[in-house]
Amino acid sequence: MGECYNRAVKLKELGEWRLIEEIDRLVGPLPDSVLIGIGDDAAAWGSLGLVQIATTDTLAQGVHFRLKDMSWQDLGWKALAISLSDIAAMGGIPDYALVALCLPGDKKVEDVMELYRGLLEMARIHRVGVVGGNITAFSSVIITVTVIGHLQGKVALTRDAAKPGDQIAVTGYLGTSAAGLRLLTSALAVDAETAALCKRAFRRPQPRVDEGQTLLDGGVMAAIDISDGLMSDLGHVCRRCQGGARIKLSRIPVHPRLKEAIGHQAEALALAGGEDYELLFTAPSAIIQGLENKVPFSIIGEVMSGPQGQVEVVDDAGKPVPWAKPGWEHFRS
Amino acid sequence: MGECYNRAVKLKELGEWRLIEEIDRLVGPLPDSVLIGIGDDAAAWGSLGLVQIATTDTLAQGVHFRLKDMSWQDLGWKALAISLSDIAAMGGIPDYALVALCLPGDKKVEDVMELYRGLLEMARIHRVGVVGGNITAFSSVIITVTVIGHLQGKVALTRDAAKPGDQIAVTGYLGTSAAGLRLLTSALAVDAETAALCKRAFRRPQPRVDEGQTLLDGGVMAAIDISDGLMSDLGHVCRRCQGGARIKLSRIPVHPRLKEAIGHQAEALALAGGEDYELLFTAPSAIIQGLENKVPFSIIGEVMSGPQGQVEVVDDAGKPVPWAKPGWEHFRS
Repeated sequence: MGECYNRAVKLKELGEWRLIEEIDRLVGPLPDSVLIGIGDDAAAWGSLGLVQIATTDTLAQGVHFRLKDMSWQDLGWKALAISLSDIAAMGGIPDYALVALCLPGDKKVEDVMELYRGLLEMARIHRVGVVGGNITAFSSVIITVTVIGHLQGKVALTRDAAKPGDQIAVTGYLGTSAAGLRLLTSALAVDAETAALCKRAFRRPQPRVDEGQTLLDGGVMAAIDISDGLMSDLGHVCRRCQGGARIKLSRIPVHPRLKEAIGHQAEALALAGGEDYELLFTAPSAIIQGLENKVPFSIIGEVMSGPQGQVEVVDDAGKPVPWAKPGWEHFRS
Repeated sequence: MGECYNRAVKLKELGEWRLIEEIDRLVGPLPDSVLIGIGDDAAAWGSLGLVQIATTDTLAQGVHFRLKDMSWQDLGWKALAISLSDIAAMGGIPDYALVALCLPGDKKVEDVMELYRGLLEMARIHRVGVVGGNITAFSSVIITVTVIGHLQGKVALTRDAAKPGDQIAVTGYLGTSAAGLRLLTSALAVDAETAALCKRAFRRPQPRVDEGQTLLDGGVMAAIDISDGLMSDLGHVCRRCQGGARIKLSRIPVHPRLKEAIGHQAEALALAGGEDYELLFTAPSAIIQGLENKVPFSIIGEVMSGPQGQVEVVDDAGKPVPWAKPGWEHFRS
């Protein structure tokens, strides 16, 4: 297979997702034991009757956070939470974590202890053993957490299992974390209680680990966690399943306080804000109905047979609603 | 348990190893399934009769490498090799790797492909499946590779298993990589062939994966890989086993070409240079003898009952030899 890029092309021109495709192509066939390789929320392999899953994710200073916006405890919590969210998006059970830290030498030891306290708080909630790691002196704070877990059975929730006709649903509320980030970095006029709610969503995301397992138990096959933003992550699902999607703007779950505080701005944040770490999943309506009272979710639309990779947002009359900003993608501005 | 540090102490004052001890203390008891937690080359846990091991390590631009000194292929090779070396130091068999990349957007896609080509070359040699990873846009190149593997049996080579009376041995030659780094960054007068040999040792370390398994099979219990430098890593072993060590300067294996080119300077590099990624192991002499013709190694000294954590270098008459620079330790200069 030949490469599909010009040799002089820069990362910011190709973008993150095309780069991952190129890497997947280059890596080529994996060992027979590998069930899910590059391109999903986590990798999965089977050994001796047990299917294991693993994922790695990074929080980098100046990219994902500024030290003035988050406590060290928040940082530790979030660094583990975002990897656990990838395990959740597979319907997996997390077991062990490894923590690779880059830290400037002039940071206090107490800062690192605080980081670990936040990380261990998250670890205890989901019964994860923090078994090892690495420490490197570096000019910025960078936290890479790898989580290894397993599946109860042999099947995982995957991005490519969505099928035309499936209903599209999401857990929880969207846009709250993005509102929190905007409150920290720019102007957004909201009351103090809503501000606290939004900042907390940004600093202390709650990975939907139990919910992911419940979805898998309930017969759901396709899921992704919403880290880049609803439009972007739903786009990934559509591209992987070679279908499209239509979602109703009024169905997208926005926290009532946020809606009240900023009106239509909340919808834009819910569509494209990112870092919600809620689960987006698709399934036939009978399966979705069976999940009621088990997981808090909202049905927001339907998987279409095409056009491939395209997500259409419509109003209650079915008319397309234009929307602007795409989700977060590394290397593109 | 109270903390053993002042709350205002900075990382560069405490140093990497004390910091790891503090983290280990804070993390506290691990799940019963965990056999080896924080502080050894890799973590190990047992599940359903299988003992798995995992480790994570980072290469950071400006700390471990400059882009002008290494090709992208070398970088990929080395990033995986240094994690495999940790697996080797446990006597483990590597299985899967996850690659977390931080990359500036103005790097070429082809650079990343080259990085992966080098990494995949190393992966094929040791039959490792590159199953996943993460990509973050960042101002520097940082590569964190996590490797998950397993043990043939239930026992691993550990740092704390050394016993007074054990012989101390190392695989291969020491100091070659450090000479390579000095050739790249400062003045060191050597002939072209020796220069090529040393630079290659720095750029393309060979993790002793097969050798680690052979040591374990042969009855060795204690090992560490030499990443920080012989004196520093032997010091870790001594502190963990609550003993000391005495090594003979003339027994330390230095490549004959390097010895010829730079004389006694080669010994200093072998003692404290770091990044050799050879295995340092200890065992009773009967076990060491049984390894001859199976693994290339040199006996360099003996584990002593004390003083704890102290490594003494002696000449052939048994007289102490003074030595200067300690091994590489993050956060200390």
